[in-house]
Amino acid sequence: MSEPGKERVRLAAVGLGRWGRVMAAAYHNSDVVELRACFTRNPERRARFAEDFSCDAAASLDELLARDDIDGLVVTVPNDQHAPVIEAAAAAGKHVYVEKPVAVEPADIRRIAAAVRDSGITFACGHSARRLAGVREMRRRLDAGEVGSPSLVEAVFSNERGLDLKEGDWRGDPAQCPGGPLTQLGIHQIDNLNYLFGVPRSVMGMGRRGPVAVTNTMVVGALLEFEDVVAYLGADWLTPGAFTIDLYGSKARLRYELDFSWWSNSADTDDHTSLTEVSIASDSADPDARVLAEKRVSLVPRDHLREEVEEFGAAIGGEAEVEVTLDVAMANVAVVLAAARAVEQRRQVEVAEVLAEIS
Amino acid sequence: MSEPGKERVRLAAVGLGRWGRVMAAAYHNSDVVELRACFTRNPERRARFAEDFSCDAAASLDELLARDDIDGLVVTVPNDQHAPVIEAAAAAGKHVYVEKPVAVEPADIRRIAAAVRDSGITFACGHSARRLAGVREMRRRLDAGEVGSPSLVEAVFSNERGLDLKEGDWRGDPAQCPGGPLTQLGIHQIDNLNYLFGVPRSVMGMGRRGPVAVTNTMVVGALLEFEDVVAYLGADWLTPGAFTIDLYGSKARLRYELDFSWWSNSADTDDHTSLTEVSIASDSADPDARVLAEKRVSLVPRDHLREEVEEFGAAIGGEAEVEVTLDVAMANVAVVLAAARAVEQRRQVEVAEVLAEIS
Repeated sequence: MSEPGKERVRLAAVGLGRWGRVMAAAYHNSDVVELRACFTRNPERRARFAEDFSCDAAASLDELLARDDIDGLVVTVPNDQHAPVIEAAAAAGKHVYVEKPVAVEPADIRRIAAAVRDSGITFACGHSARRLAGVREMRRRLDAGEVGSPSLVEAVFSNERGLDLKEGDWRGDPAQCPGGPLTQLGIHQIDNLNYLFGVPRSVMGMGRRGPVAVTNTMVVGALLEFEDVVAYLGADWLTPGAFTIDLYGSKARLRYELDFSWWSNSADTDDHTSLTEVSIASDSADPDARVLAEKRVSLVPRDHLREEVEEFGAAIGGEAEVEVTLDVAMANVAVVLAAARAVEQRRQVEVAEVLAEIS
Repeated sequence: MSEPGKERVRLAAVGLGRWGRVMAAAYHNSDVVELRACFTRNPERRARFAEDFSCDAAASLDELLARDDIDGLVVTVPNDQHAPVIEAAAAAGKHVYVEKPVAVEPADIRRIAAAVRDSGITFACGHSARRLAGVREMRRRLDAGEVGSPSLVEAVFSNERGLDLKEGDWRGDPAQCPGGPLTQLGIHQIDNLNYLFGVPRSVMGMGRRGPVAVTNTMVVGALLEFEDVVAYLGADWLTPGAFTIDLYGSKARLRYELDFSWWSNSADTDDHTSLTEVSIASDSADPDARVLAEKRVSLVPRDHLREEVEEFGAAIGGEAEVEVTLDVAMANVAVVLAAARAVEQRRQVEVAEVLAEIS
């Protein structure tokens, strides 16, 4: 993708908060894409971004969209502004990469889907966790039969940020942040499960609130029903960070661990992960005589954020396919909404029921 | 408990299969209890046991129960024979230690409960996992407030033994082994959860069968609702062994791991375990700047099986209280049965509903 002299795909950053800067740091010096312009409403903030990443600052979204030297946008505005920004981009023929979740309000999701489909733009949703080296290796081993038949998978994402929530924070509002940590944390693991096993059929869940100022759910345990495996998803906002995936197969089990405090340094994230395999090293007809062996799997580090934006750029140029499409992004949100509903209504919720509501 | 010259409590082993021998190896040289006699139907097997552990072999259960130099029994007969053996022991005024599960058939549980309560014998059920050094230390830290407020706990027990099951094996029969690995594996973790958090209010679950010759459930994921925490229980019979407990608190999270292949060597089991604590080592108002630290907790090894039988002996002598009483044992079975029913009927099951049926 990085042939010398080749034209780079020209991108603009829209939404220049913390995450917009993290993303720009990951792709601004890419050989595949070029960060040409930026926009956010706050003039000082866009001037600083433009200077830091050597790009133009547009005075308005309309001005940015009117430029014919911009191919696509990297959108990191707040979730509830995704729909209007994507509609405007699609109307102007600009391709869109948008941060997860694609949206959580059913009306917003329908607007985005209509805009993307009617315009035919290239669309990608930011779910980079599946590009972590260890997650890729889990999938490779699964596909190659190296873990045998999978039976159970457990994916957990926790951090302590719920403990800091103040009254009025959007994360404390069940409408803006369904299921609390499900929308902010769990969705990363829901996409990993999608990558490994597809879309689950149904979801059950239990949740609880925390000793904090907001009423949203702070802890969720959910069970996801896949074709062949039972999955557990843990999303907890009241405890020091954990990001783990345990996959249990008939030949081996795999444990993936990530120190999420390295998440934003995407070139270094993989250096703070581990993948461990446990298998039966010495088999025997007598089960008591079997001996387990644990091995650390060596991983070749990647750059999950840069790779995602470069794939988006290459897809715009017709040289790649987007992996996390609108359909995948919508399925991920459907699982979040199904789990939040399962917790609230204390019943098993079919993912198809939610998908029908947001499609 | 081991004052020199003190009379030891006199025990007899009933049921001399693999587990009866493991137990005897753990307590036969105790200062608190004395293994004085044994019985099983097979004459060669009881002769060999009597020789190996330097005790008498009784020709029948009645002969054993008629002896006035036996205070209590260590019962490790198959689960479905617990009720008649315990009834006979209670009628003869012999105290009973019985291997988990106390029983799984509601009628058997009621018979055992009536026999124990009517006779007033000392009764203990074998659930030794809670005596593992790391599990004790988890509880100590919880009680001392060292993990802060707990929000989530995950307990997993898996092994590959379901892959070996042949048609006709009792473990493959849902009536004798409800929920498959729930009865054989999950119950250990259910007792650990009982030790840490008490009896859950309700249970949800998902299960699946395996690519094996029996129709019983081979994998279960369950959610348990406690007063303050959400719990996940994984029980999987189709994968290399795992025995883990993850406890998530507001100040720290703890991970316990046990290599279960050392389970039967109870004096050495704790040497093959680890307890790890993750906490925020460097706090900051900026969540991105917080740094996690992982520490291995040092544990003082114990002997989970010996301790359990010695406690039983001391309780007979009036010098200790039994920790895993009939009520605890029945609550553990109620959770197994509730989880198996939740999986089968795809609904949330109240533990009180099952407890009412078996009481």
